[in-house]
Amino acid sequence: MTAKDYSTVVHERRSVRKYDSSYKLDRALLDEILEEATLAPSSRNLQPWRFIVIQDQELKKKIRSCAYNQEPLETASAVIAIIADCEMYHNALKIYRSKFDQGLMDEVTMQRQIDGIEQLVPHTSFATRLNIATFDCGLVSMQIMLGAKARGLDTVPIGGFDHEQVTEALDLDATRYEPILLLPIGKAEQPGFETTRLPLSDIVDYR
Amino acid sequence: MTAKDYSTVVHERRSVRKYDSSYKLDRALLDEILEEATLAPSSRNLQPWRFIVIQDQELKKKIRSCAYNQEPLETASAVIAIIADCEMYHNALKIYRSKFDQGLMDEVTMQRQIDGIEQLVPHTSFATRLNIATFDCGLVSMQIMLGAKARGLDTVPIGGFDHEQVTEALDLDATRYEPILLLPIGKAEQPGFETTRLPLSDIVDYR
Repeated sequence: MTAKDYSTVVHERRSVRKYDSSYKLDRALLDEILEEATLAPSSRNLQPWRFIVIQDQELKKKIRSCAYNQEPLETASAVIAIIADCEMYHNALKIYRSKFDQGLMDEVTMQRQIDGIEQLVPHTSFATRLNIATFDCGLVSMQIMLGAKARGLDTVPIGGFDHEQVTEALDLDATRYEPILLLPIGKAEQPGFETTRLPLSDIVDYR
Repeated sequence: MTAKDYSTVVHERRSVRKYDSSYKLDRALLDEILEEATLAPSSRNLQPWRFIVIQDQELKKKIRSCAYNQEPLETASAVIAIIADCEMYHNALKIYRSKFDQGLMDEVTMQRQIDGIEQLVPHTSFATRLNIATFDCGLVSMQIMLGAKARGLDTVPIGGFDHEQVTEALDLDATRYEPILLLPIGKAEQPGFETTRLPLSDIVDYR
């Protein structure tokens, strides 16, 4: 695989809607893309993202039926469901402990960070935690899409789906987890459409 | 500038907290980073992100005072405030019209897309639109951080700040706009700390 330079990857990424349904995606490659993507930052490094990688054809069909019948959910090699963990604070101890164990943080700082999280985050509202997790899922999702493109694969982010139906189809605990994005990934059969963006002058303000 | 390959950029990006405060960031370079970052996808391509680029030293100090006195907000060359536009539907006509004008979409499809947005999006709740815009701001923010790193600059995403105070300091219309992230950007004086991630086995489930 040839290493592509960063800007080329960003410019070449498009939402692809037609996939080669015969193409099999290697689990090692999916793992590589996901592991690299999780280098994204997150609020207090709590990494409130979970991934369900759907390759089973029947489950893909079921998910398609929860999402306005959008074709790529069935024809792409896999669908990565990106799920927000709204009780991300349960991992504080494990995350900061591993930083301490690897000599990247002293014990006092570790304990202060864990205490800070445990005293604050569980007491914020579900809506607040969902909002934080949603933003962090945006960060990691972008790196999954770019990481796929860098490896010659394509994706299309699908946010329009019935959240209750997807929660049920994936057997998620709705008190804790919220599905954020369905991301078909595979080999493009047709390239994505060209599209346009608002001019910078409409969206940037220098002060 | 040497083009860096994609994975190198992802691996080298770290949250940097010590900046060379004498380093001046060129507006053309900031524009280049922002324009490239806005190639990120968004829900219905409505691009619900706005950027206020703060280089004025007094305004940087004021923003710092709204965000637990975090140093990079004052010492980095600029702070990019990433703002969610929760009335993103106002741009539907302009966005889809430009796609039609550039020959990328026929007139019937254009009108169907605009109608679909105008009939649906304004009638969803503010919370729903904020959630969509927050996710999309996550996508574009990741591309800003990576685009900065690809050009030898560093960033640190700051989500912990008083939203009301920042809304006031930036003179935002709170009925429409919500500040999502403060992103100092500049030349690192000290490298970012190494950090750790949860193992894939904790966060990925293959089905």
